[in-house]
Amino acid sequence: MERTRVVVEEVGLREGLQSHAVLLSLERKIELVELFLAAGLRHIQLGSFVNPKKVPQMAGVEDLFRHYRDRQDAVFSALVLNRRGFDRALDCGVRALHVSLSASATHQRENAGRSIVESLTELCAVVREARQAGMRVKGGVQAAFGCYLEGPVAADQVIRIASALAEAGAAEVNLADTAGFARPGEIQEVIGAVRKALPAVKLSLHLHNTLGMAPASVTAALNLGVTRFDGAAAGLGGCPFMQGAEGNIATEDLVFLLQSLGLARDLDIARLCVAAARARELFGAAGGGKLGAHFPRLAALGLVR
Amino acid sequence: MERTRVVVEEVGLREGLQSHAVLLSLERKIELVELFLAAGLRHIQLGSFVNPKKVPQMAGVEDLFRHYRDRQDAVFSALVLNRRGFDRALDCGVRALHVSLSASATHQRENAGRSIVESLTELCAVVREARQAGMRVKGGVQAAFGCYLEGPVAADQVIRIASALAEAGAAEVNLADTAGFARPGEIQEVIGAVRKALPAVKLSLHLHNTLGMAPASVTAALNLGVTRFDGAAAGLGGCPFMQGAEGNIATEDLVFLLQSLGLARDLDIARLCVAAARARELFGAAGGGKLGAHFPRLAALGLVR
Repeated sequence: MERTRVVVEEVGLREGLQSHAVLLSLERKIELVELFLAAGLRHIQLGSFVNPKKVPQMAGVEDLFRHYRDRQDAVFSALVLNRRGFDRALDCGVRALHVSLSASATHQRENAGRSIVESLTELCAVVREARQAGMRVKGGVQAAFGCYLEGPVAADQVIRIASALAEAGAAEVNLADTAGFARPGEIQEVIGAVRKALPAVKLSLHLHNTLGMAPASVTAALNLGVTRFDGAAAGLGGCPFMQGAEGNIATEDLVFLLQSLGLARDLDIARLCVAAARARELFGAAGGGKLGAHFPRLAALGLVR
Repeated sequence: MERTRVVVEEVGLREGLQSHAVLLSLERKIELVELFLAAGLRHIQLGSFVNPKKVPQMAGVEDLFRHYRDRQDAVFSALVLNRRGFDRALDCGVRALHVSLSASATHQRENAGRSIVESLTELCAVVREARQAGMRVKGGVQAAFGCYLEGPVAADQVIRIASALAEAGAAEVNLADTAGFARPGEIQEVIGAVRKALPAVKLSLHLHNTLGMAPASVTAALNLGVTRFDGAAAGLGGCPFMQGAEGNIATEDLVFLLQSLGLARDLDIARLCVAAARARELFGAAGGGKLGAHFPRLAALGLVR
């Protein structure tokens, strides 16, 4: 495992913003992105192209993408859930696209207002056009490890969606544990099934820490050879399953885990904690993650640097 | 991994009591033990034979051991830190002994008031006598993954202590992450080193969840073939590293993780949550662990039974 190259994608600006009521100015968003870059992060999700009437926190996301349009040393990704979002992303020069839909019919209906088939048809067309436009494309499957509305989600359903997105041209499939239900057993089961069906596709994981199992799931996924993980600074972000629950696995905690295995050494954990602290200030939320509070003591003891 | 037999030892009555100011009557302690037994737990630590002037919560621990003296279908263990504790344990018919000392010189001095060498010499004699008396004996190494006073602890020091205890007759070595610093990397490193030095000794892990990494460490340890883990109902117990931090990994969370891998199926997770809820009531403490709060929803969704 020691020599594997691990990719950590920082999704706090999207995940955090959509879950907290606070509106950040362009300047504050840039401030956070610069802190992420200073910590060594080179995969950063800047936001989602969703309806600003429904998610006012994402209004003006175009300006952030335009600001980083010419920056070549990092990948700035955009989440889109439909064609309208894709058209807006295309307009402002997005180069890395993340399309996403849920493997749970109820969740997809509630979250996107459409059926899985309707969304999948539209998003597969989007993927093809995005590839023609020269974009990197990642296809996301939400609720891939269970749904807070439906309960278990069949691996077959995950495979069906992942296969369609991959066939349309997505080079990477992002399996999202939207509710935070995954444990090492579910990780083995779902990743094993998707791998078998799609051996050539890169897999990445988006884990929420609702049940405190995200670090265990990362460990199980590493053992299966998965090397791409999302994180959100300060564990900000939501869990629709329970108000006040932790959101996405905290980037700094994720990297703290990875570095114990000799991975992700290109990331600066002290600076990740600085970014997390600033994110907490700006969002006015405690977030999740444990490392932030303990880092000074751990550093003083020489247990982390 | 699926067919491995995993042993979970419930240490909440020792770990929880020593960390919270509440005094439990014999009746309340028995009530908790009965809830643990009803959940299927067959390895239960009833308490420690320490100075009741210093730890008044442990006063009268003899009565609890006498109460379960003739019960044959479970292993009731006692923690002792010195000869005085051993003599008391012997007097009331303890059959499973856990001796323990720290691999950190500073921590050992602070916790036991003696040096590692002094304690090790005395405890090795205790182990020999306990074996002669027909007891099961487990030798514990505290701060095996780092110390909240000293920082890093050399694996060589852990091996030295573990070897002496094993040579004296301890059939099992319990590596304790007293501060909660272990991550999968430290687990691989320390367990790898101890295994190499002591291939015949059974290893067990005692993990604190201070940094949220205990489930990840369990996952890493399972991958190394470790099959024995301590847990404390409701994650009660202390962390000397930080006031208010989570204690030992919650037994119900540990079992929730293990069952996702097809392990520990002999334990009833609903009843573990009942025991955890009662422990929270009796200790008047929130404890740690996530499963308790989420169990009803997870059960309703058919995600856990």
